[in-house]
Amino acid sequence: MAATIIRNVKALAPLLDRVLVQRIKAEPKTASGIFLPESTVEKLNEAKVLAVGPGAFDQQGKRVAVSVQAGDRVLIPPFGGTPVKVGEEEYTIFRDHELLAKINE
Amino acid sequence: MAATIIRNVKALAPLLDRVLVQRIKAEPKTASGIFLPESTVEKLNEAKVLAVGPGAFDQQGKRVAVSVQAGDRVLIPPFGGTPVKVGEEEYTIFRDHELLAKINE
Amino acid sequence: MAATIIRNVKALAPLLDRVLVQRIKAEPKTASGIFLPESTVEKLNEAKVLAVGPGAFDQQGKRVAVSVQAGDRVLIPPFGGTPVKVGEEEYTIFRDHELLAKINE
Amino acid sequence: MAATIIRNVKALAPLLDRVLVQRIKAEPKTASGIFLPESTVEKLNEAKVLAVGPGAFDQQGKRVAVSVQAGDRVLIPPFGGTPVKVGEEEYTIFRDHELLAKINE
Amino acid sequence: MAATIIRNVKALAPLLDRVLVQRIKAEPKTASGIFLPESTVEKLNEAKVLAVGPGAFDQQGKRVAVSVQAGDRVLIPPFGGTPVKVGEEEYTIFRDHELLAKINE
Amino acid sequence: MAATIIRNVKALAPLLDRVLVQRIKAEPKTASGIFLPESTVEKLNEAKVLAVGPGAFDQQGKRVAVSVQAGDRVLIPPFGGTPVKVGEEEYTIFRDHELLAKINE
Amino acid sequence: MAATIIRNVKALAPLLDRVLVQRIKAEPKTASGIFLPESTVEKLNEAKVLAVGPGAFDQQGKRVAVSVQAGDRVLIPPFGGTPVKVGEEEYTIFRDHELLAKINE
Repeated sequence: MAATIIRNVKALAPLLDRVLVQRIKAEPKTASGIFLPESTVEKLNEAKVLAVGPGAFDQQGKRVAVSVQAGDRVLIPPFGGTPVKVGEEEYTIFRDHELLAKINE
Repeated sequence: MAATIIRNVKALAPLLDRVLVQRIKAEPKTASGIFLPESTVEKLNEAKVLAVGPGAFDQQGKRVAVSVQAGDRVLIPPFGGTPVKVGEEEYTIFRDHELLAKINE
Repeated sequence: MAATIIRNVKALAPLLDRVLVQRIKAEPKTASGIFLPESTVEKLNEAKVLAVGPGAFDQQGKRVAVSVQAGDRVLIPPFGGTPVKVGEEEYTIFRDHELLAKINE
Repeated sequence: MAATIIRNVKALAPLLDRVLVQRIKAEPKTASGIFLPESTVEKLNEAKVLAVGPGAFDQQGKRVAVSVQAGDRVLIPPFGGTPVKVGEEEYTIFRDHELLAKINE
Repeated sequence: MAATIIRNVKALAPLLDRVLVQRIKAEPKTASGIFLPESTVEKLNEAKVLAVGPGAFDQQGKRVAVSVQAGDRVLIPPFGGTPVKVGEEEYTIFRDHELLAKINE
Repeated sequence: MAATIIRNVKALAPLLDRVLVQRIKAEPKTASGIFLPESTVEKLNEAKVLAVGPGAFDQQGKRVAVSVQAGDRVLIPPFGGTPVKVGEEEYTIFRDHELLAKINE
Repeated sequence: MAATIIRNVKALAPLLDRVLVQRIKAEPKTASGIFLPESTVEKLNEAKVLAVGPGAFDQQGKRVAVSVQAGDRVLIPPFGGTPVKVGEEEYTIFRDHELLAKINE
């Protein structure tokens, strides 16, 4: 976990091909409205893109634009990424090529 | 397993050279019609392609089209890929180059 | 072993630089005609090419044709390749560069 | 830890794509002003860039400028980098691509 | 050991940058003519080239000719290569770049 | 340790992108002039460049000049490099990209 | 150790970027002329170049000339290389980029 004293996550501007996302939290209650203890709530692999880097350089020295943009919902891999803590919230930074899919829903 | 709260698998748009497939299930009964307990049903390595990414970039910065398209039947490797769960169904995401063969039958 | 419900191996069209082969079986009898139990029959590293892929892409984005074609006899390495089962028959899928030699006999 | 007898950290000119940073120290007291023993102060992953290298060479033989400049605040990874000691102060040298994000706050 | 039912080693045409060689056998007798048991005969790292492949492709898509030709004597590395058995004889297949030196004697 | 019978370290001309350096020795006494036993003297990661190679070749076949020159003071990594002994003195050979920073003091 | 029946080491022509060297032997006596048992003689990392290959191919398909030539004295790394025995003498084959420095003395 990369700890910070940043006050606002909007201050983070990912470098190269990095993508800053926040994992979407599962509803901590059942369909019928009963609240579940946090430990039984499954961790979801969906996330919202908050900010993207300008892209890494290819072998011709040109930037390769990342595949997603701020606001996109994405499917993230079950492992990997660097967790970042800003205030009480947790975020994750992935390389663009680690993201699995966009979610168009 | 990448857990999600997506309602419709059609919402998933694979990124780069990724291919979203669903494994074809073996019939859980014998040729003579006797039903088999699920644990004795062999897992098949055939899958149906549901969606493909736009292709990864080659060293010239051009997209390399993936080898298959939605609707194709493909032979998948016995190991690998990232499993994804949407509702009660399981899907798998492969990189294009991990698929073994198209099945033209 | 990649299990399938494919009925005809001709339905398999290898992708990229893959080559579908079937191993040649050793005669289960001695030169003087005595049949040997299967466990004593040495596994041969000769195979017949059944189908080849269209070739992988080189760094210029062009397909590199594979080195063999359907009908060729080839020397395969003692290890490697992905086994595939179609009906009761076993086949193997190699990458083109894993094949050792053509057999012109 | 790379020990030195350098008197002034300004004497250090990173080579190629290296970036010299100094980690920002967490306040060793609580919000209400109570001082904490050093061992309970969380190590922050924020750093200030002190100097950057001229960039590594790409495959065309051209320098690739690094992504940050002296004075930038950056998010650094929880692991990695080469620690350097100048006088009583500790610094860290990263490769440019290891830095996670710029902090614009 | 790659076992075969090939009758003539001349049927083997190496693929890409592969080179088919046969190891030169050490004389199983001392200088004064006393025969040695086979287990005490040192294995030599000299071999005769029997056939060469057409060369692998470089990144421009052109064949790179192999460094040796049929008939050459070569110094082979103490480890590596794929052994092949044709009839009662053993051969070895190397990649061109694994061969150490030509022997011009 | 690469042992030699070279009499003068100036005879050593590094090859490709190699850089020959000599580590700067820490003063074996305290600020107030008390001499310390050698085992308590911290090993410094500063070195003086004695000679540099002509540079390695890039993929276009051109030499890439090394980043430092004879006479430079450099920050070396805490691990790595090949130690070389000439007479009673010890030297180290690094690849150019292993050096961390120039010291302009 | 690559054993051979070659009579003359001059028959060895290294392939690609290989360099054939012979290690220089340390004098088995002290400065004052006392002979030392062989086990106490330090192994030197100096060698004489006997023959060089024509160079490996770069990505443009051109030969990259090796950095040394026959007759050069070189500093060799403490580990690596392939030992070769010709008659009673031992030699070593290195890749060009493994050699550390030329010795101009």
